[in-house]
Amino acid sequence: MERVLALETIKKVGQEVLLKGWVNRRRDHGQITFVDLRDRSGLVQLVFQPGGLDEKSRGVIGEIRSEFVIEVVGNVIARSEKAINQELPTGKVEIRVKEIKILSRAESLPFDMSGPELNLELPTLLDYRSLSLRHPKVQAIFKVQEVVIDAFRRALKAKDFFEFQAPSIISSAPEGGAEIFEVKYFDHKAYLAQSPQLYKSLLVSAFERVFSVNKVFRAEPSVTTRHLTEVISLDAEFGFIESWLEVKDMAEYTIKFILREVEKLCSQELSIFGAKIPAVPEKIPYLKLREAQQIIYERTGRDCRAEKDPSPEDEREICRWSRETHDSDLVFITHYPTKYRPFYTYPDDQDPEYNQGFDLIGRGTEWLTGGRRLHNYQTLLKHAKDWGVSPKNIELYLQAFKYGMPPLGGFAFGAERITMHVLGLGNIREASLFPRDMERIDSRLSLLEEEE
Amino acid sequence: MERVLALETIKKVGQEVLLKGWVNRRRDHGQITFVDLRDRSGLVQLVFQPGGLDEKSRGVIGEIRSEFVIEVVGNVIARSEKAINQELPTGKVEIRVKEIKILSRAESLPFDMSGPELNLELPTLLDYRSLSLRHPKVQAIFKVQEVVIDAFRRALKAKDFFEFQAPSIISSAPEGGAEIFEVKYFDHKAYLAQSPQLYKSLLVSAFERVFSVNKVFRAEPSVTTRHLTEVISLDAEFGFIESWLEVKDMAEYTIKFILREVEKLCSQELSIFGAKIPAVPEKIPYLKLREAQQIIYERTGRDCRAEKDPSPEDEREICRWSRETHDSDLVFITHYPTKYRPFYTYPDDQDPEYNQGFDLIGRGTEWLTGGRRLHNYQTLLKHAKDWGVSPKNIELYLQAFKYGMPPLGGFAFGAERITMHVLGLGNIREASLFPRDMERIDSRLSLLEEEE
Repeated sequence: MERVLALETIKKVGQEVLLKGWVNRRRDHGQITFVDLRDRSGLVQLVFQPGGLDEKSRGVIGEIRSEFVIEVVGNVIARSEKAINQELPTGKVEIRVKEIKILSRAESLPFDMSGPELNLELPTLLDYRSLSLRHPKVQAIFKVQEVVIDAFRRALKAKDFFEFQAPSIISSAPEGGAEIFEVKYFDHKAYLAQSPQLYKSLLVSAFERVFSVNKVFRAEPSVTTRHLTEVISLDAEFGFIESWLEVKDMAEYTIKFILREVEKLCSQELSIFGAKIPAVPEKIPYLKLREAQQIIYERTGRDCRAEKDPSPEDEREICRWSRETHDSDLVFITHYPTKYRPFYTYPDDQDPEYNQGFDLIGRGTEWLTGGRRLHNYQTLLKHAKDWGVSPKNIELYLQAFKYGMPPLGGFAFGAERITMHVLGLGNIREASLFPRDMERIDSRLSLLEEEE
Repeated sequence: MERVLALETIKKVGQEVLLKGWVNRRRDHGQITFVDLRDRSGLVQLVFQPGGLDEKSRGVIGEIRSEFVIEVVGNVIARSEKAINQELPTGKVEIRVKEIKILSRAESLPFDMSGPELNLELPTLLDYRSLSLRHPKVQAIFKVQEVVIDAFRRALKAKDFFEFQAPSIISSAPEGGAEIFEVKYFDHKAYLAQSPQLYKSLLVSAFERVFSVNKVFRAEPSVTTRHLTEVISLDAEFGFIESWLEVKDMAEYTIKFILREVEKLCSQELSIFGAKIPAVPEKIPYLKLREAQQIIYERTGRDCRAEKDPSPEDEREICRWSRETHDSDLVFITHYPTKYRPFYTYPDDQDPEYNQGFDLIGRGTEWLTGGRRLHNYQTLLKHAKDWGVSPKNIELYLQAFKYGMPPLGGFAFGAERITMHVLGLGNIREASLFPRDMERIDSRLSLLEEEE
């Protein structure tokens, strides 16, 4: 008999089926035992009545506990009206089991997994990651993340972008080295890439439009709720632009595409978290940093008009403004002071002290960053020099410009961060399957040290 | 006016168009200049006649050289019968240019890029990677690779697999440490993952069916034509199998899906290389290592019947056998000696000295490796101990088995290697955008050292 998934049983009333999965919960009512069976499609209720089982199975039923992996053969029965469970997609049926077999045993669980919430402190959630990832609420996070990443790819493929795989090991720290990881590379030193920025730009000279889903690495020396040392970076870059506005518009299109797909494909996951897709109007509002600071000053009296970056409180305030005046949870801030941004950013023609870059602020915090880049070889060389970047360290990158590079720009954002903000998670670690930070690489590093 | 791509001009005869791209080649015939313009869709011929240009453009035309980035406005004209170029998809049209503008200049090229072949030694090809990647024959490699990776994802999504992102930084070297890269991780040592094997297995206990496209890292201390230090690994793993044959069949389905997609979507790229998709029969033949060795012995007289692995010559011989007897360029070799394989491989029930693992051999060399894994916690613990693997180093992995793991298996292969074998490339470095090996991380390491 071929295996059937839990969710498929609702179309098999009256039929005999073979099911396989985990014991999500076991309840005994006198002689009768109920088991919620969990597989990749969800839950279905199994009913064990002593009379209905063959002899071998009767012996097995006493043994099974939470997280045992079992295989059952039984009949799909429609539940009586008052036994229907509206909460469960399979709540109108149950399985009268005839045979049961244990495929794999489980030790006693360190915590209860059977409820709709998994109320664990973050360290426990992560110490037991191989177990906690089985919980539907934890799984929902990664189903949303899978859709975010896949929608990113589809959005850009639809615009004729080429997908590339960026390298992780790099030979130098082109944009400064404070937060870069060092690798022992045979007899040399190498580093882990902090961003595929230079690679995606140089590839524009070959493929015009490129994107990548890649790991990037930041030796973030502090423990915050917003930073990981290993991040899934979603990067896009393209050439032959007329203006930086095309770059902003492509970022806007991409984010809207992703949010629409999450809304469409993850309604169940969103409802588990009570989360709503951010409100996005026809056109996401955008304004220059100095304009945003003026608005904040006028609204709050707080004078941040000379700051080079918005503070977290500024980001929240400009989102309140955006929400109130444009019905938008998202807002672009553009034109940051050129000298505080990387050497390759494009100064505005009218006012070169500010650049043609932008950040997308969502729900009070940064979601995405992007902008136009310099494409003229001589200007780029001069900027590199002014910024203290050695041309020798970016030789391959400069080569692309030396031999003809079109006007270009691009954007990037982290998959974990978007997942976190869409679902309203309190800590980015929840949005990473196996989060890495200063204190943890699966194992807690402090514990490792104590033992060694 | 909106930009049109080179390939789109064939549907715009008689219309005025705006084109943007690189000067692939310039030829002067007296007063008339021909330029092959290249963009992401391919080539189209531009014609510059002094009378047809405005004054400003007449000044520009003298300047342009190979790889200049230009923008032109002109009329699409059908070529006369005898001027048609059958080799070119746009060979029936040409563009009579009225205006030209230089978007970006290029220095003189270090080698000629305009022909259908790019005859460079590998070091030169890589030293000028930002330039050589513009050549259509080099680009074809990465278009095939993009399809391989995308088809892998689509094949497994169609079978209800969940896509995950595996971590790159790991806390220990669980399967032995000789070829592992060490990372300076704050005050600790960490390592770069050689494979997502343990992660994909443990995730089966949460998602049942998983796959990933991830970088893996091998500190390969020798320079061969088949090895890189950074590889794109395509990994799949799934649970609730009845037998190892299901794992082999899933691998077969996936490879066939990929080859079919490459054949369908990359006919032009294949023809550039004169490459043919491998012959694959309805069912790829499979045989045990000892059976294969017996066949080789009978065919060649070479007695390899006690070897633990097939030699390269054995792999070629068994492919000849497969081709001759099964019309297949691909063949599975199964059941390798258990003790030489990792601790988690599943010994055959009938003959535990051999395991339920397999390699797919294609065109004389290994393409893919896979097998069934142990799922019983106690057996796994015992094997780990027997293999000298410390349970402390694989704690998170073992946790998944401690709390109930279904029977499982999976497979993995490298995107670069498949690309190489499909196109018949001589060196795997050609199949990596930015290949890393003992001697090179973009820059040649020997040169770096000399300079420092």
